[in-house]
Amino acid sequence: MRAPKAPKVVSLGEAMIRLTPPDHQRLLTTDKLEIHIGGAELNVAVALAQLDVPAAWVSKLPLNALGQRVCREAARFGVDTSAVLWHPNGKMGLYFYERGAGARAGTVFYDRAGSAINFLDCEELDWDFIGQAQIFHITGITPALSERARKLTENALKEAKKRGMTISFDVNYRSRLWNPEKCRQTLERLLPNADIVICTERDGRTVFGWMGTAEEMGQQFLLQFGVRAVTVTQGARGVTLVTSEGTLFESAIGTEVVDRLGAGDAFAAGLIFGILHKDLHLGVRYGLAMAALKHTIPGDWFIGSRQEVEELLTGEAGGVRR
Amino acid sequence: MRAPKAPKVVSLGEAMIRLTPPDHQRLLTTDKLEIHIGGAELNVAVALAQLDVPAAWVSKLPLNALGQRVCREAARFGVDTSAVLWHPNGKMGLYFYERGAGARAGTVFYDRAGSAINFLDCEELDWDFIGQAQIFHITGITPALSERARKLTENALKEAKKRGMTISFDVNYRSRLWNPEKCRQTLERLLPNADIVICTERDGRTVFGWMGTAEEMGQQFLLQFGVRAVTVTQGARGVTLVTSEGTLFESAIGTEVVDRLGAGDAFAAGLIFGILHKDLHLGVRYGLAMAALKHTIPGDWFIGSRQEVEELLTGEAGGVRR
Amino acid sequence: MRAPKAPKVVSLGEAMIRLTPPDHQRLLTTDKLEIHIGGAELNVAVALAQLDVPAAWVSKLPLNALGQRVCREAARFGVDTSAVLWHPNGKMGLYFYERGAGARAGTVFYDRAGSAINFLDCEELDWDFIGQAQIFHITGITPALSERARKLTENALKEAKKRGMTISFDVNYRSRLWNPEKCRQTLERLLPNADIVICTERDGRTVFGWMGTAEEMGQQFLLQFGVRAVTVTQGARGVTLVTSEGTLFESAIGTEVVDRLGAGDAFAAGLIFGILHKDLHLGVRYGLAMAALKHTIPGDWFIGSRQEVEELLTGEAGGVRR
Amino acid sequence: MRAPKAPKVVSLGEAMIRLTPPDHQRLLTTDKLEIHIGGAELNVAVALAQLDVPAAWVSKLPLNALGQRVCREAARFGVDTSAVLWHPNGKMGLYFYERGAGARAGTVFYDRAGSAINFLDCEELDWDFIGQAQIFHITGITPALSERARKLTENALKEAKKRGMTISFDVNYRSRLWNPEKCRQTLERLLPNADIVICTERDGRTVFGWMGTAEEMGQQFLLQFGVRAVTVTQGARGVTLVTSEGTLFESAIGTEVVDRLGAGDAFAAGLIFGILHKDLHLGVRYGLAMAALKHTIPGDWFIGSRQEVEELLTGEAGGVRR
Amino acid sequence: MRAPKAPKVVSLGEAMIRLTPPDHQRLLTTDKLEIHIGGAELNVAVALAQLDVPAAWVSKLPLNALGQRVCREAARFGVDTSAVLWHPNGKMGLYFYERGAGARAGTVFYDRAGSAINFLDCEELDWDFIGQAQIFHITGITPALSERARKLTENALKEAKKRGMTISFDVNYRSRLWNPEKCRQTLERLLPNADIVICTERDGRTVFGWMGTAEEMGQQFLLQFGVRAVTVTQGARGVTLVTSEGTLFESAIGTEVVDRLGAGDAFAAGLIFGILHKDLHLGVRYGLAMAALKHTIPGDWFIGSRQEVEELLTGEAGGVRR
Amino acid sequence: MRAPKAPKVVSLGEAMIRLTPPDHQRLLTTDKLEIHIGGAELNVAVALAQLDVPAAWVSKLPLNALGQRVCREAARFGVDTSAVLWHPNGKMGLYFYERGAGARAGTVFYDRAGSAINFLDCEELDWDFIGQAQIFHITGITPALSERARKLTENALKEAKKRGMTISFDVNYRSRLWNPEKCRQTLERLLPNADIVICTERDGRTVFGWMGTAEEMGQQFLLQFGVRAVTVTQGARGVTLVTSEGTLFESAIGTEVVDRLGAGDAFAAGLIFGILHKDLHLGVRYGLAMAALKHTIPGDWFIGSRQEVEELLTGEAGGVRR
Repeated sequence: MRAPKAPKVVSLGEAMIRLTPPDHQRLLTTDKLEIHIGGAELNVAVALAQLDVPAAWVSKLPLNALGQRVCREAARFGVDTSAVLWHPNGKMGLYFYERGAGARAGTVFYDRAGSAINFLDCEELDWDFIGQAQIFHITGITPALSERARKLTENALKEAKKRGMTISFDVNYRSRLWNPEKCRQTLERLLPNADIVICTERDGRTVFGWMGTAEEMGQQFLLQFGVRAVTVTQGARGVTLVTSEGTLFESAIGTEVVDRLGAGDAFAAGLIFGILHKDLHLGVRYGLAMAALKHTIPGDWFIGSRQEVEELLTGEAGGVRR
Repeated sequence: MRAPKAPKVVSLGEAMIRLTPPDHQRLLTTDKLEIHIGGAELNVAVALAQLDVPAAWVSKLPLNALGQRVCREAARFGVDTSAVLWHPNGKMGLYFYERGAGARAGTVFYDRAGSAINFLDCEELDWDFIGQAQIFHITGITPALSERARKLTENALKEAKKRGMTISFDVNYRSRLWNPEKCRQTLERLLPNADIVICTERDGRTVFGWMGTAEEMGQQFLLQFGVRAVTVTQGARGVTLVTSEGTLFESAIGTEVVDRLGAGDAFAAGLIFGILHKDLHLGVRYGLAMAALKHTIPGDWFIGSRQEVEELLTGEAGGVRR
Repeated sequence: MRAPKAPKVVSLGEAMIRLTPPDHQRLLTTDKLEIHIGGAELNVAVALAQLDVPAAWVSKLPLNALGQRVCREAARFGVDTSAVLWHPNGKMGLYFYERGAGARAGTVFYDRAGSAINFLDCEELDWDFIGQAQIFHITGITPALSERARKLTENALKEAKKRGMTISFDVNYRSRLWNPEKCRQTLERLLPNADIVICTERDGRTVFGWMGTAEEMGQQFLLQFGVRAVTVTQGARGVTLVTSEGTLFESAIGTEVVDRLGAGDAFAAGLIFGILHKDLHLGVRYGLAMAALKHTIPGDWFIGSRQEVEELLTGEAGGVRR
Repeated sequence: MRAPKAPKVVSLGEAMIRLTPPDHQRLLTTDKLEIHIGGAELNVAVALAQLDVPAAWVSKLPLNALGQRVCREAARFGVDTSAVLWHPNGKMGLYFYERGAGARAGTVFYDRAGSAINFLDCEELDWDFIGQAQIFHITGITPALSERARKLTENALKEAKKRGMTISFDVNYRSRLWNPEKCRQTLERLLPNADIVICTERDGRTVFGWMGTAEEMGQQFLLQFGVRAVTVTQGARGVTLVTSEGTLFESAIGTEVVDRLGAGDAFAAGLIFGILHKDLHLGVRYGLAMAALKHTIPGDWFIGSRQEVEELLTGEAGGVRR
Repeated sequence: MRAPKAPKVVSLGEAMIRLTPPDHQRLLTTDKLEIHIGGAELNVAVALAQLDVPAAWVSKLPLNALGQRVCREAARFGVDTSAVLWHPNGKMGLYFYERGAGARAGTVFYDRAGSAINFLDCEELDWDFIGQAQIFHITGITPALSERARKLTENALKEAKKRGMTISFDVNYRSRLWNPEKCRQTLERLLPNADIVICTERDGRTVFGWMGTAEEMGQQFLLQFGVRAVTVTQGARGVTLVTSEGTLFESAIGTEVVDRLGAGDAFAAGLIFGILHKDLHLGVRYGLAMAALKHTIPGDWFIGSRQEVEELLTGEAGGVRR
Repeated sequence: MRAPKAPKVVSLGEAMIRLTPPDHQRLLTTDKLEIHIGGAELNVAVALAQLDVPAAWVSKLPLNALGQRVCREAARFGVDTSAVLWHPNGKMGLYFYERGAGARAGTVFYDRAGSAINFLDCEELDWDFIGQAQIFHITGITPALSERARKLTENALKEAKKRGMTISFDVNYRSRLWNPEKCRQTLERLLPNADIVICTERDGRTVFGWMGTAEEMGQQFLLQFGVRAVTVTQGARGVTLVTSEGTLFESAIGTEVVDRLGAGDAFAAGLIFGILHKDLHLGVRYGLAMAALKHTIPGDWFIGSRQEVEELLTGEAGGVRR
């Protein structure tokens, strides 16, 4: 008889219903909205599951059609949602995203205040389930949601640490949720628990005020918070990986952009794939390939396979295969 | 030079963005959502404006693309929204509507808690503007939203009364917002201010526990609350109008149903049209024709013209004119 | 080597681009329009070609993408358009059609004034090509378009007559193009050339003022204009066929309605099929089946096959075959 | 730690990609096709999983995007597909479905010859996994596919029987796959293994030539094949349940029809739900409610919940709840 | 009480219904058409209203659903259409636009001959209403429509001049309406009334035969017609502003192109914004930002806000704000 | 009377229904598929017919809605399909195409095994009809389909040769149908019959192992197979034409890409146009222009006109003409 697959990676965070005007329309005038699901931590779990890494996501969702939709869609892509908790009449987090085009910037605005995850406490979570995994992934978005969500994050990090999990932390500063000062103060408490940190160069500057090179920024993380490894993502240029053993830069893979959101999370999934294979360089390369592929796919999720990632990395992709 | 048209009817209430799966899809699986705007009181103003009755709607909206969309769409159909107030970072009320089909019931669920209108107080409103109108239209939905919205309703009724406006009140019981007992207690305070009441037979039974005929129900409203006229809407059968001068029944106009929501508000608009023409029977007939037409139009709004209403009433409509 | 198939039926008339809001939308608000092609005489040729009857259509079209589209679509369904004439910078006839639903009537409005066919004269037509056919089909729409089109109709009827063609004439009164009086006067000149006439009971009353039964109406056509056979179509009820040999009534086949336009032309095609098979009763039965099927198909055209017509007539259709 | 849920019901059969023109279009002209997944046995598993019955489906699928899609979609609705087998370069079964409307019959045509399931042998299946379940569900479609698939069916029935599973068998005669004579011969070998049989009145007449009442038909199944219970489905009328303890008729629930396919499978799922609850009458009532709801949902699958089924049965559904 | 806002800018010209194949389809084959509204002068009014500049548009429209649609859409974006005149059974101007892509050029063809505006005379206009505004905006398209429209333009310019309005004139040569020679002759009569002229470098060469630099072209306008200021738009390069006080060049803002039409009108609106703020340099910068944003929006209209224009100019836009 | 136009070019090969996710969706998740028709040889005939070259296509198709659709669509664009043969219950070839974007490669997978064309023998074809044409066009795809199709190709080449037709052969290596070795062996037998060969540089390397320049590759074809002319297509760079009279290189025309498939066939059609005009250089230039235009059009087919090709070649295209 088939044994259940325990997750190797568990992420914790909010997932939202994302509503997007199609075909470059504006929110002011579109008569239809595309429906997708997005949330940094769930995005990572979805991407990992498609690389055949057993992945679970934990959160609290409202017990209605939208909450159920989130779980069903996650299950569709292989994410274990059996430990998700339900709020009997809670609010589903939503966000509206206009893609923009050329000179017109993309815009996001949230309708997530008071959503179900803000009623989730660390002790409600099934830590025996979570603790089976090797890696616990979390981001700087959750503590920005509310005071209770901040405590949830803090306690969850301690609980994961206590169980010997490797902690992956994506800074993900969100200016629509808090300000740099508040973010910095919170992260200074949380980051000492992290093993691996992912941070954009821009967030490094905005939140921590670090003005040096990407390498110097990475070293600051190592020095100040004692983390083992940092990737500093530098937008369309590439990624700098800094560990105690040295620094490494990998260029981004250029691509046409269909949908920009979720690319950072696709990168994080690739990096975690590398951690699981004890090869951070592989992780960076996977992450960059997955971020490039994600840019070509509508919605927040990387929809693809390990084979596609490898073909892109080995240069076998391109043109039309027939 | 053109003088500004003062409104003849002003309504007050919440408008929401409505999101609906197309083509009989389910919310759990649809990949697109149609976007419409709905709110009982705005629906009435939109329908009146299309009969060339100067109509305004007052409310509070969040200052974002969704709030602006509501005003722009209302303006598109001729509603004066110049007295709407803005909440700098408030929440837009939303609702999700699955149309259903045959054996599958339609379902609505709201995401409107804490929306901008719950931050509106009576004294913020421009009563000099509102007071120009002859009729003030309001429904039993607003007092169900929150304690503050209940006070808003109560004070607005007093203010309108003070200015000699005719008050039209649509009971509109919403089981997802409160219970019959709470509704009844509130309406008992509010209805003595009303001149004209619109109530479904079902709400009469549920909220007030009146088990008699539609005529008896109407007379209860006259006796208990001192209103001048009541229409008791009896679903697909028709409407009973009860005034001190007597009772009158008018049959509903049968139709294929494309979208059920907003038909009651189209009826209310027709009735108010009759009040303005000092002919309640005309109002009931207009209301029934407009409700029938509304059933054939996607969204909450009656989109049409006085000519179409009259052609339906005189039997000139039907088939294809070419 | 394959010999070219000479047409058995040729029709003459205007084809228009038809623009229709999808999904019960209104023309006032829809953001998309479906594009179809319609024109009574072309509709008949398209339906006949799908029954494998060699059919051609002649007209004048503007030499632009819309005119070319008409010819390409007709060719797609097997209609010979090789004798169509081109106006180097003419106007394409257009019409806007709102389908309506239930209480809301369907509406058509035309934008066809001055279109290319109004620049077509009888002598421009390739009568050697047309004259190969057995049947010439024409309707009361063409003479309503303009004085020049009236002359075209009159001369074409004479020319066809001269060549011994059987003339099929569909009355098709269009109130948006002329009035009953003008129509009657014109038809009194044209109909004596006709062999077979198709007329709705309603047009019989409106144009000729005949108030008797369908049978009496048919006999009027025989007496007054000397035609050989008449079908009086009585809407959802059925069709009365009147010839010198007697009268016959056939009931309509009930159906859900997807798109009402073109059903009369599908009937005409079925009738002409019967004429070609020297069996008018068969023609009426084919016509009614084709009209029923047409009602279920979006656009003005019968899209189907002789097999489907026969299965509907023999009752083998119904349910889902799998 | 969470124990894996063993399936209570396992079904075996082919799933196909279904391609359907939207909006009443014809296959000859539509420019888009809707993509759904259908297959009688998978349809049943999907419906059961949504009633929270642990259900698994076994089959063989091609290892390409279409095969993976089938598994992902099944997982989305909670079906365990962990025991599905993969054909490295097999063909995905397809079918094209035109919905029809009114007088126009729906049509199905298959492109499933030589598909992956025709390369599946009984011994490849993980019988330890399947054997955990209480019920094994199979239909008369599988043995119609090919000689190898007939053997698969026969051997699977024996294997399931050997393990003490209750066998549910849906006759499902498919005239496009074989003829009545061949079907009857095969079923005469297979049905003696069945415990519960589902058969339409029409299939009873076509395949077995039984011309009596539904009750008599049911008794024939009991007598001839020794099955414990039979439901004879009588289209829009209802269902007759025949067991050794007697006969029971339950009326169908009328409904508007959005998509006809899969309703029989939704009924089967409800019946199996009743078997699991040791209440066949409950099963018939659930089945009829689920079939009615299925008719209102695009695609082959019942998308819904136990709560909706119960509300329909208790009459709480109807209108719009808000 | 709220005073009516008098318009600051009034434009006069034709608006058309624009029909466009979606998704790079061709007019020959597309099965849907997007519906937008376009007309150079209305486009300008719509853009200004969204910058919160009170703007009105005057014209003559047919009294049907298409004509009403134009007014409702204009009202939706805040344009005052209260002075529009109605033709009881006139023709709506239409145009068909294929966007093209890469090597395939975009194409426009008109169906506007004999449309309602060709029945508008200067004296029908409400000059007391128009005369309240500071700026009167008109283009070289109107005089190209017909002799009567040429007279309308000439008389309207005189009337506006008489009332002391500042006249903004956009040359907008349309080769499908007339030839360069005829255009030049007409403009030589009209332009002496203009205060501000907008002209593309290409039109300057084609119509006036001026072969010098953009600056020299601007000076020609000053010298020959006595205008106060000219902007010479040089496609993707930028704009040269020439006044008696000197010359100034501003570069265009590069952008991905979603829909090319209306960008020139968005520029004109920005320039007029600058005129109202007595800062032509600001106007040029606004115009270029608005033209860039317009390129990213489907349809002819700039849909946006002053805030977006400023963010683009200050470089705050870019990426995704969240 | 009109004489039938005999074809000047006849092509032989398989056409498939192509199914493509819209809007950059993935096959795994899209809910709709666009339907197009593709097949190298039919694509060529369609493109030629639009240049007003009488063109026919011969093949065998299944007698169902999909097979009929292929013929109707071909007829729509002017291709003579009167000599196509029908398989009473054959399989329609299908292929699924994901367009890809940027870093994500396009992918094609076929479902064409055992399709109707594999049941076509050379002697079934109407060679008197085919033999009227000047040019016979065929590709390396047909012999890759099956042994019977290989024989069909071989015999058809001989038959065409015998009748003095000029043979145009497009190598078109398909890695999903066979391997380079098998392809080479087959082509070595077939190519000596060819007059004109079209081959991509990549196929030259893969199939024949030729590693030299494009010119050298062309000369190999001349030497080894005795063909009269070869075009070596070098992707985005251009085309090298090699004949006994010398070599000529023409650059490709850059363009945005909407749909990549069918561009090679559009080139082939242009080249054949040149052959018919006895001007191979013209053919190469037409081919490159047609390939560029094809890249901008959804589907496999060049939809356009000779005028558009010439405007692109003379540089008159570009921008928006209005």
